[in-house]
Amino acid sequence: MKLLIINGPNIQLLGRRDPGTYGSTTLPQLEDRLREVAKELGVECAFFQSNHEGSICDRIAEAAADGTDGIVINPAAYTHTSIAIRDALDGVGLPAVEVHISNIHKREEFRHKSMTAPVCIGQIAGLGTMGYELAMRALVERAH
Amino acid sequence: MKLLIINGPNIQLLGRRDPGTYGSTTLPQLEDRLREVAKELGVECAFFQSNHEGSICDRIAEAAADGTDGIVINPAAYTHTSIAIRDALDGVGLPAVEVHISNIHKREEFRHKSMTAPVCIGQIAGLGTMGYELAMRALVERAH
Amino acid sequence: MKLLIINGPNIQLLGRRDPGTYGSTTLPQLEDRLREVAKELGVECAFFQSNHEGSICDRIAEAAADGTDGIVINPAAYTHTSIAIRDALDGVGLPAVEVHISNIHKREEFRHKSMTAPVCIGQIAGLGTMGYELAMRALVERAH
Amino acid sequence: MKLLIINGPNIQLLGRRDPGTYGSTTLPQLEDRLREVAKELGVECAFFQSNHEGSICDRIAEAAADGTDGIVINPAAYTHTSIAIRDALDGVGLPAVEVHISNIHKREEFRHKSMTAPVCIGQIAGLGTMGYELAMRALVERAH
Amino acid sequence: MKLLIINGPNIQLLGRRDPGTYGSTTLPQLEDRLREVAKELGVECAFFQSNHEGSICDRIAEAAADGTDGIVINPAAYTHTSIAIRDALDGVGLPAVEVHISNIHKREEFRHKSMTAPVCIGQIAGLGTMGYELAMRALVERAH
Amino acid sequence: MKLLIINGPNIQLLGRRDPGTYGSTTLPQLEDRLREVAKELGVECAFFQSNHEGSICDRIAEAAADGTDGIVINPAAYTHTSIAIRDALDGVGLPAVEVHISNIHKREEFRHKSMTAPVCIGQIAGLGTMGYELAMRALVERAH
Amino acid sequence: MKLLIINGPNIQLLGRRDPGTYGSTTLPQLEDRLREVAKELGVECAFFQSNHEGSICDRIAEAAADGTDGIVINPAAYTHTSIAIRDALDGVGLPAVEVHISNIHKREEFRHKSMTAPVCIGQIAGLGTMGYELAMRALVERAH
Amino acid sequence: MKLLIINGPNIQLLGRRDPGTYGSTTLPQLEDRLREVAKELGVECAFFQSNHEGSICDRIAEAAADGTDGIVINPAAYTHTSIAIRDALDGVGLPAVEVHISNIHKREEFRHKSMTAPVCIGQIAGLGTMGYELAMRALVERAH
Amino acid sequence: MKLLIINGPNIQLLGRRDPGTYGSTTLPQLEDRLREVAKELGVECAFFQSNHEGSICDRIAEAAADGTDGIVINPAAYTHTSIAIRDALDGVGLPAVEVHISNIHKREEFRHKSMTAPVCIGQIAGLGTMGYELAMRALVERAH
Amino acid sequence: MKLLIINGPNIQLLGRRDPGTYGSTTLPQLEDRLREVAKELGVECAFFQSNHEGSICDRIAEAAADGTDGIVINPAAYTHTSIAIRDALDGVGLPAVEVHISNIHKREEFRHKSMTAPVCIGQIAGLGTMGYELAMRALVERAH
Amino acid sequence: MKLLIINGPNIQLLGRRDPGTYGSTTLPQLEDRLREVAKELGVECAFFQSNHEGSICDRIAEAAADGTDGIVINPAAYTHTSIAIRDALDGVGLPAVEVHISNIHKREEFRHKSMTAPVCIGQIAGLGTMGYELAMRALVERAH
Amino acid sequence: MKLLIINGPNIQLLGRRDPGTYGSTTLPQLEDRLREVAKELGVECAFFQSNHEGSICDRIAEAAADGTDGIVINPAAYTHTSIAIRDALDGVGLPAVEVHISNIHKREEFRHKSMTAPVCIGQIAGLGTMGYELAMRALVERAH
Repeated sequence: MKLLIINGPNIQLLGRRDPGTYGSTTLPQLEDRLREVAKELGVECAFFQSNHEGSICDRIAEAAADGTDGIVINPAAYTHTSIAIRDALDGVGLPAVEVHISNIHKREEFRHKSMTAPVCIGQIAGLGTMGYELAMRALVERAH
Repeated sequence: MKLLIINGPNIQLLGRRDPGTYGSTTLPQLEDRLREVAKELGVECAFFQSNHEGSICDRIAEAAADGTDGIVINPAAYTHTSIAIRDALDGVGLPAVEVHISNIHKREEFRHKSMTAPVCIGQIAGLGTMGYELAMRALVERAH
Repeated sequence: MKLLIINGPNIQLLGRRDPGTYGSTTLPQLEDRLREVAKELGVECAFFQSNHEGSICDRIAEAAADGTDGIVINPAAYTHTSIAIRDALDGVGLPAVEVHISNIHKREEFRHKSMTAPVCIGQIAGLGTMGYELAMRALVERAH
Repeated sequence: MKLLIINGPNIQLLGRRDPGTYGSTTLPQLEDRLREVAKELGVECAFFQSNHEGSICDRIAEAAADGTDGIVINPAAYTHTSIAIRDALDGVGLPAVEVHISNIHKREEFRHKSMTAPVCIGQIAGLGTMGYELAMRALVERAH
Repeated sequence: MKLLIINGPNIQLLGRRDPGTYGSTTLPQLEDRLREVAKELGVECAFFQSNHEGSICDRIAEAAADGTDGIVINPAAYTHTSIAIRDALDGVGLPAVEVHISNIHKREEFRHKSMTAPVCIGQIAGLGTMGYELAMRALVERAH
Repeated sequence: MKLLIINGPNIQLLGRRDPGTYGSTTLPQLEDRLREVAKELGVECAFFQSNHEGSICDRIAEAAADGTDGIVINPAAYTHTSIAIRDALDGVGLPAVEVHISNIHKREEFRHKSMTAPVCIGQIAGLGTMGYELAMRALVERAH
Repeated sequence: MKLLIINGPNIQLLGRRDPGTYGSTTLPQLEDRLREVAKELGVECAFFQSNHEGSICDRIAEAAADGTDGIVINPAAYTHTSIAIRDALDGVGLPAVEVHISNIHKREEFRHKSMTAPVCIGQIAGLGTMGYELAMRALVERAH
Repeated sequence: MKLLIINGPNIQLLGRRDPGTYGSTTLPQLEDRLREVAKELGVECAFFQSNHEGSICDRIAEAAADGTDGIVINPAAYTHTSIAIRDALDGVGLPAVEVHISNIHKREEFRHKSMTAPVCIGQIAGLGTMGYELAMRALVERAH
Repeated sequence: MKLLIINGPNIQLLGRRDPGTYGSTTLPQLEDRLREVAKELGVECAFFQSNHEGSICDRIAEAAADGTDGIVINPAAYTHTSIAIRDALDGVGLPAVEVHISNIHKREEFRHKSMTAPVCIGQIAGLGTMGYELAMRALVERAH
Repeated sequence: MKLLIINGPNIQLLGRRDPGTYGSTTLPQLEDRLREVAKELGVECAFFQSNHEGSICDRIAEAAADGTDGIVINPAAYTHTSIAIRDALDGVGLPAVEVHISNIHKREEFRHKSMTAPVCIGQIAGLGTMGYELAMRALVERAH
Repeated sequence: MKLLIINGPNIQLLGRRDPGTYGSTTLPQLEDRLREVAKELGVECAFFQSNHEGSICDRIAEAAADGTDGIVINPAAYTHTSIAIRDALDGVGLPAVEVHISNIHKREEFRHKSMTAPVCIGQIAGLGTMGYELAMRALVERAH
Repeated sequence: MKLLIINGPNIQLLGRRDPGTYGSTTLPQLEDRLREVAKELGVECAFFQSNHEGSICDRIAEAAADGTDGIVINPAAYTHTSIAIRDALDGVGLPAVEVHISNIHKREEFRHKSMTAPVCIGQIAGLGTMGYELAMRALVERAH
């Protein structure tokens, strides 16, 4: 089983940007941690981060061809506006879980609505970087 | 460590109500499963289900006095309208994780907004009954 | 055939509350009249009134197990806000007809929308207490 | 006592148009059935169907002069937009009951609001063609 | 194959009304041109123009019985408000293409929404009277 | 100079419909009075009343050809919804004054907006049947 | 009979401000013309113009005590927002007619709604400075 | 004279819940203080607190029969959503004053609207627990 | 201690304007009564009434310099729209209580929202002129 | 004459993504077909597809310099949100026709509004891949 | 060249009101600083501050007659609601630049919209009192 | 001190796109002018233009590491929708001033709201290319 972990815009700033909201773990540290989780779960995993809505669409489309079995995606700022990422996820039809490090439901009104969650299996928000682990676990359990 | 798992209105119908959306596990089966998860995590757990908004508020208020360390709550239909449950959670100040069995973000518009999520740590939606397990895990890890 | 007639909050005040809008028949008088209608239609009937949203959910859930074949429900104030009663009706899947004594469509804006009507067969509004009789008739005819 | 049964646009297609929603009874069959109901209730009845908003207004205005005692009206598509029919009903001041064959409250958002119901005694929706019978019954009982 | 071309309110003023927006071709000239297009495509065509919402519904209902295979309709002002024409098109179930001479999407806000397009195959807007030709072509090609 | 006075739906009920709002003058009495005003102003006048939106459009279109120099129009219920009458008035380009017998600005919310006033010179509301006289006067003075 | 003509903010710029919209008559010229109209109608008239919402309220309150029988008011910019002027007019209870020189219904959205018209007898808009004359005429005729 | 003081959901947490907003007085302390005020005013008083919307409706209905002359009610979270409590208050017709300890007008948007205030005499908000005293005083003075 | 009582537009009409809503006490009578209350409470008080939004801002700004310790303000019509008075109150930072004689929450929709209440300690509405007394009492008690 | 055909995000998935909505033609097959249409119409054509909003803007800007005479554009998901593509099309001022394969007017609410159509000549929606051909034809005919 | 600097309500409190938002410079200090800037730019300048919407309109109208060549205006609270000041600026037609000391775009929602900016050349917000200098500079450079 | 000047989509068309709105200066000419301003202010400056939302985020993130002390940004079309650029600016925490060449407040409704201004120090709009100079000046002065 092969999982793809996608991170959207500004997640490369993790650990530096507003640590009160996002914690002090950096993106490379997070990816290391998730590699261990993958090993523990007995699955492969690949990572992708981009600030480009189009590149995220491109990567999702590739996933349909490279043997990916499930997607963990934190579309970050694009969560709330991107019909393109929604259509990409919907188009490839792979099971996906949306993750948000912060609790988007207690932030600005415009962060409460997700354009992408309706085409995912579900959404995990506010549990910090642990959300990625739980999402991986959920995709693996669901596949059994 | 002691966790309280609260289920809101109509969750007692689990396994009988719309299995396409909610699965075929019944509430007693779910509670059995969560008892095992609690054992595995080395924590105690208590269960509460009610169709009454007021009883859920009562139970949350009691939790402040009975040594509860964290709450997993599926407020079900009350998620979208209950300021009373929101105030109860906010009033006792215990860490809580909101769980939804179905992906509320792909259902009717009125199920997209949560009145209670802003006073929780976070929300897990759409991952079936596994969501409860993940929420328990998150509360336990967070406490370490 | 067995019908359940449910009345929501403040309907116990019938005959005393704003007779210009609701008429002077009291709830016991109405239930007597409906018992006669039931006899005439050759069906059994049971009655339930509560000011508690949760109790109404409880009673609907019981109906799934006690041989009820159809529900006549006047959710009163809960009509316009209760997702819990909607989910209960939807969950048990019994045919239901929503009744309103007054013409909710000519009252305050917030009484125009029904959360529960979409999960019922239909709605009768404004025909006074006669609406209950018509609803019973409709459920019986529909069953033939 | 003399009742007028008015049917609005596209009701002449009854039995042919979307039978899943509207049933397989045709308009002439429905009118035959309602003639029998009228006989049974000891009242006269007249029928009118038109796709023209203006003709429906014309007919309502005539009713004020031809001895009509009550109106059963299914304004169909015009229900949701016609201030003209509303004003006609309000202008002649005859008791009217609004009928909808399908449950408009579970269809598209724009079918939930009725411009005409506020000037009627009440509304019956979703009970199929039986709704017309119940409306006739209600007008007759109310007159006693 | 037999096509029906329906024009809604004020289209009889074509060529006289606001030529900057609608061009200088008159309705008879347009119909002559479309007759030629029909000949070229090897199909029959009939024309109908009315300022009456009800007459347009009447004509659509007739189309279900007179062997019409497809409809090209410019509902003009009724596009934005007529549930009756929407229901008529939906009721007869014939393939229809909605045409607008002007680009309704760059005009007043209230012209942006179409009540009728959702029950048509599609919509062509802003291509002048050429839109009718393209719509005819599309209906013919689609039938092959 | 030739004026056309158009009255929309239900104005034929004038004098009978809600005299508290509309006064006790009947439509024929009003037209007689306006004929006198026309004589006094030295202009011709023609009258038209219809409950049909389409007929009103037809009549406006004719006005472009029959030498009409100005229009006084009370679109009544169609004021608030008719894009067709708006387009007809706009299409013929004759100066028009919109008249309302009652003060639409103090009635229901949906009567506050006029679809037709933006294509008229102006609007007179609430001055009773005198509004027609003032509108005629205004059209005549404006022509000088 | 004594009429008070009130003009709101920026009307003192009349003749200089945007003559395409408001014409080239100045306020003193307009007042001279209205004095003649008053003479012709056999009534007295007083004038008041202010850019101050509070002064307009003050002047309306005085009118209750100085024998004013009717008010012609062009609240200009305050039309759309002033609850204070609305309350003043409502408080003194004198018959008032609201006048607008330009057709506010074809201008910006925010000029379509009047806060003050609901407490006036009616509104005249778009007929230029002639609107004041018609309003005076209406108040005088109404008093007979 | 007999006053009933009703407190809604989570008010039993008073003194423990967010003292910055609600102060440090507990509910028993508050009730003691109000008993003294009652004595001082020469009236009887009864107390009721519940987290249950239905129980509050029940208690209000009882008040109609137990000789209560006035109600002081803090519906807390139910203020903003409960049509049932509104209907109960309206149904029994006793004079009521709505009290809020905190200034609901400076809190979240959803706390600005009160469903219950329109059926009360008035509302006191933001004056802390003193609001109850002032409300009692107001009911007593009003009765004289 | 020194209190300033500010009354907004049209309050000078008190006793004359709509006595059903506002009672028959005049403003001078009210001020006399409040002077007595002040004496009883052992505080000084000053009065200000103006129809001018700007004058109210001016007076509030002066209060910051003249030793005023608290403000009782009935901004009347300006309550619902005045950001200027809100900013003035916020700018001087004196404790203020907003008073409304009538129950603004049961009147027109536009009177439900207060722009000024969020910068006051609280709001008293619907308790008639007694509201001023209660507000004074609240400011005095709060200062102890 | 030289036409540029631009396809937006996820159109590269054509034939694979939801064939019920988009058909089974792939993007290369569509481009081949359009090359033939171009040959038949005697014009040149170039193709561009990108998932990147910025790249589409870049390509439109280039078109202003490379001799392009007209643009056929399917902005796909960006249709509904991209002000950048709207500004690019508006900035270069080339005639453009917007094409949608599916009938966006019968899909989710958020797909009904087009940000780009107002700066195009017109829009063709719902006619499948034939829409591109009709758009090319329209641009060529319009140029004659 | 002659510039007029207008400051709206509560700006006289500058330096005393919320220094965190507005800084500690007082209005006289600001005017002194701007006099120096004027000297440096070789222009004359006049100052005006008022809490009165009407006085600001009066002053703008005077500017049309006193040789003013440009206006720098901080309408403060009136920015968001004053159609009167908008009409005054629009009426005199002098170039104006709107200035806000604080960043209104990051404050309450109701401060985001400006009624006056659309009739100014532009707006400067959030740059503190430096905004006035930049506005003066912009008006002077623009005049060259 | 080092400033970064970022220009968003379609700004590369400056001088060619709609000169009535944007002027005839090209982007290279503008950058030359700003280089001179920088020299005059004694600061360094760098330039970046992109049509790609993601590239603008990338560049802002780089600025956190390359010694940039302040940002002047014209996000153009992305101003109104880009949460990603907002988060990038907020994430790096550098002082930024938003600039718009045209007065966005007098253009289409959707250009009135800025997603990015709330995380900037302030916004300058409508002052043409001079706005960039003023923004640079403001950043430099603010640093002193």
